[in-house]
Amino acid sequence: MVKAAPAEDRHDHFAVREGVHLIIDLHGAEGLNDIDLIEATLRRCVEAAQATLLHIHVHHFQPNGVSGVAVLAESHISIHTWPDAGYAALDVFMCGKATPDACIPVLREAFKAQRVDVNEILRGRVP
Amino acid sequence: MVKAAPAEDRHDHFAVREGVHLIIDLHGAEGLNDIDLIEATLRRCVEAAQATLLHIHVHHFQPNGVSGVAVLAESHISIHTWPDAGYAALDVFMCGKATPDACIPVLREAFKAQRVDVNEILRGRVP
Repeated sequence: MVKAAPAEDRHDHFAVREGVHLIIDLHGAEGLNDIDLIEATLRRCVEAAQATLLHIHVHHFQPNGVSGVAVLAESHISIHTWPDAGYAALDVFMCGKATPDACIPVLREAFKAQRVDVNEILRGRVP
Repeated sequence: MVKAAPAEDRHDHFAVREGVHLIIDLHGAEGLNDIDLIEATLRRCVEAAQATLLHIHVHHFQPNGVSGVAVLAESHISIHTWPDAGYAALDVFMCGKATPDACIPVLREAFKAQRVDVNEILRGRVP
């Protein structure tokens, strides 16, 4: 007979797989073709959120636009930019004790965004 | 005086920055600690969606769990797995002519998921 896990174990178990996924849109933003600014801003987001960076990759499109991803111990951050439109689409997904909301003022300031839309999705909840 | 862009230019311009962002949860899934299966499945998703792979990175956590990201010409795919829970959190973000929905049967089959939840977010729409 298989015994059920103790309640505190189940709690830990489910807690680990819960995360916050922020879907972030920047409008009226600047600096969106500056790959160095974008990489530096991703790194500042990781620090602000008290997350742990495992891997970062940024790609510059021709004629313009940048995609970047930061893989974290806590999940990831991504950014895709359309400089001519002043628009960037990001997502910030973090599990555990990181604070993904702390990325929002970093992004707003770095890209001088006139408008920042944020939608929060809770991931990994038990159905 | 600055002239407004012709209507067809504006249409093209806005079309470029529209994308579909799928938030995908797999429950009751298998193979979630198999980093080779996960990388191969990300590559199959890219092919199925007729997207263009620019960069891929997968990371194996100790004692278990995998995070992976595929940077695409069309945006990205990410996966984060919790093997003990049979749970994986993915997002598939694609702009242009790629077909992100084509990833869903690939994921369902590769990981033998008992349940697949998909939420679609339209990104980059003009406010």
